[in-house]
Amino acid sequence: MLYDLIIVGGGIAGLTAAIYARRGGLNTLLLEGGAPGGQIIASPELENYPALPKVSGVAFVQRLLEQTAALELEIKYETVSKLHLTEEIKEVETASGAKYQARTIIWAAGLVARRLDCPGEEQFLGRGVSFCAACDGMLYKGKDVAVIGGGNTALEEALFLSKICLHVHLVHRRDSFRAEAALVQKIKQRPNIVLHMPAQVSRFEGNKRLEQLVLQTPDGREVLPTAAVFQAIGKLPSNQILSDNLALDASGYVIAGEDCCTALPGVYVAGDCRTKPLRQLITAAADGAVAASRAIAYLH
Amino acid sequence: MLYDLIIVGGGIAGLTAAIYARRGGLNTLLLEGGAPGGQIIASPELENYPALPKVSGVAFVQRLLEQTAALELEIKYETVSKLHLTEEIKEVETASGAKYQARTIIWAAGLVARRLDCPGEEQFLGRGVSFCAACDGMLYKGKDVAVIGGGNTALEEALFLSKICLHVHLVHRRDSFRAEAALVQKIKQRPNIVLHMPAQVSRFEGNKRLEQLVLQTPDGREVLPTAAVFQAIGKLPSNQILSDNLALDASGYVIAGEDCCTALPGVYVAGDCRTKPLRQLITAAADGAVAASRAIAYLH
Repeated sequence: MLYDLIIVGGGIAGLTAAIYARRGGLNTLLLEGGAPGGQIIASPELENYPALPKVSGVAFVQRLLEQTAALELEIKYETVSKLHLTEEIKEVETASGAKYQARTIIWAAGLVARRLDCPGEEQFLGRGVSFCAACDGMLYKGKDVAVIGGGNTALEEALFLSKICLHVHLVHRRDSFRAEAALVQKIKQRPNIVLHMPAQVSRFEGNKRLEQLVLQTPDGREVLPTAAVFQAIGKLPSNQILSDNLALDASGYVIAGEDCCTALPGVYVAGDCRTKPLRQLITAAADGAVAASRAIAYLH
Repeated sequence: MLYDLIIVGGGIAGLTAAIYARRGGLNTLLLEGGAPGGQIIASPELENYPALPKVSGVAFVQRLLEQTAALELEIKYETVSKLHLTEEIKEVETASGAKYQARTIIWAAGLVARRLDCPGEEQFLGRGVSFCAACDGMLYKGKDVAVIGGGNTALEEALFLSKICLHVHLVHRRDSFRAEAALVQKIKQRPNIVLHMPAQVSRFEGNKRLEQLVLQTPDGREVLPTAAVFQAIGKLPSNQILSDNLALDASGYVIAGEDCCTALPGVYVAGDCRTKPLRQLITAAADGAVAASRAIAYLH
């Protein structure tokens, strides 16, 4: 089966591209390796999306999925492992070994959470190591958890978890926060948030599941028992799979202008994974619309 | 009173800029010369806005106005007549003679309907000559009206009016439509839509209000009695007021990239009035977010 379009990534950019592509009559497959919705599912409440304030990220994604389902979008939950983009017919391979072909591709893979890269992290992924409090927080209701990071996201994750968990240990490598003053104030007023700073995680330890973190502090080694750790130390593009075919900038973003076109005919890039001046829900959605419109024009 | 930011234009770009600016703490004035919401108020139903399908343009704008009111946005309904943009403090004059000052300006003036420029058009503006069926159609319930144009918008306006009015006369200068085949099909099936093509309007006639159109057809002059005429012959940027200070392209759009920055420090341009690859609700909204973010960064 030859699709008109394969969209890689089911965040706001990919789903908006799907809306435009389906309305434009394109036979479209969307591939998503994780949960649909992308980063926004971690947001407890959207505030700045025009005309739709005060909905949760999860509810927002639900609306998008209903909208694309009404347009009969085909979604497969598979992780893309290989891409062949240079020929007229593009091919996408997934981790399951499946191969899909299309005349056009929109790469909308978004960003992935940065890792600490220390011993035990990989072993306890999904067994206590998480990157999303809104997704996994409820699994640790009434327990002690840790959050790692010092920016807005880390502090928001800690505040969110402090309403569910017994104690939240906020571990930050510096002695002051990068986050907004208002958030720092809230953190300090929350009695069940315990600050560990400056402190760096050196190991994740446990048996079947994570049981404790080993911290390095100015006073030496410290062991912090915890049922889970939520890492919020930044996000990175995961465009390495493209680097044989497309130019990436020094930070790993695909170099493309606001027309979302790449150097390869029929290959477009949309959303946070593209070089762009502002990474927001609304600008990712705009990219999806532009990329799909370009794919439609290319196919005509 | 010196504002941090003046936004010119209350369409989706301007209102989204206002959301971001107010959330960023900017003391903001939005100036709008007509009805708030811009072109979208003419849309009977949005279908491709992500996560908010199936709302009318008017309902969409209402949501935006509630969102900006909750952020205590100051809006004044005045038409901008003059701009002074080159100094550090920018000044905006309005038709009423008022002057407003700000450190930054976002120009989000959108597009205006193209005019036929034939005798009587100016005289009957608002007295039978309209550019928006969704805005003014109900004023002509049960009466005969005319629509001018042959593209998607003209046919959508005619379909909309055919449910309200006795007869809809669709006047088009060519003998075939530019509009999508599906729309043309619908038009032909609607018994109270009468096609006049090829035919060109040469005069608008009446007393206090429009009473008839004079058409030029291959068979000669024809008089078409009508209570109103809805013109849908395209839209144009209205950026002439900027042309002393900023570069416009051949079609009159302000030349600016996706960062919405102009050659003048502190002056930004957002939405349909900017040179850009796709003019859609969602891309105008994205521009508003980008322009406001740039204004915030500039002021810091």
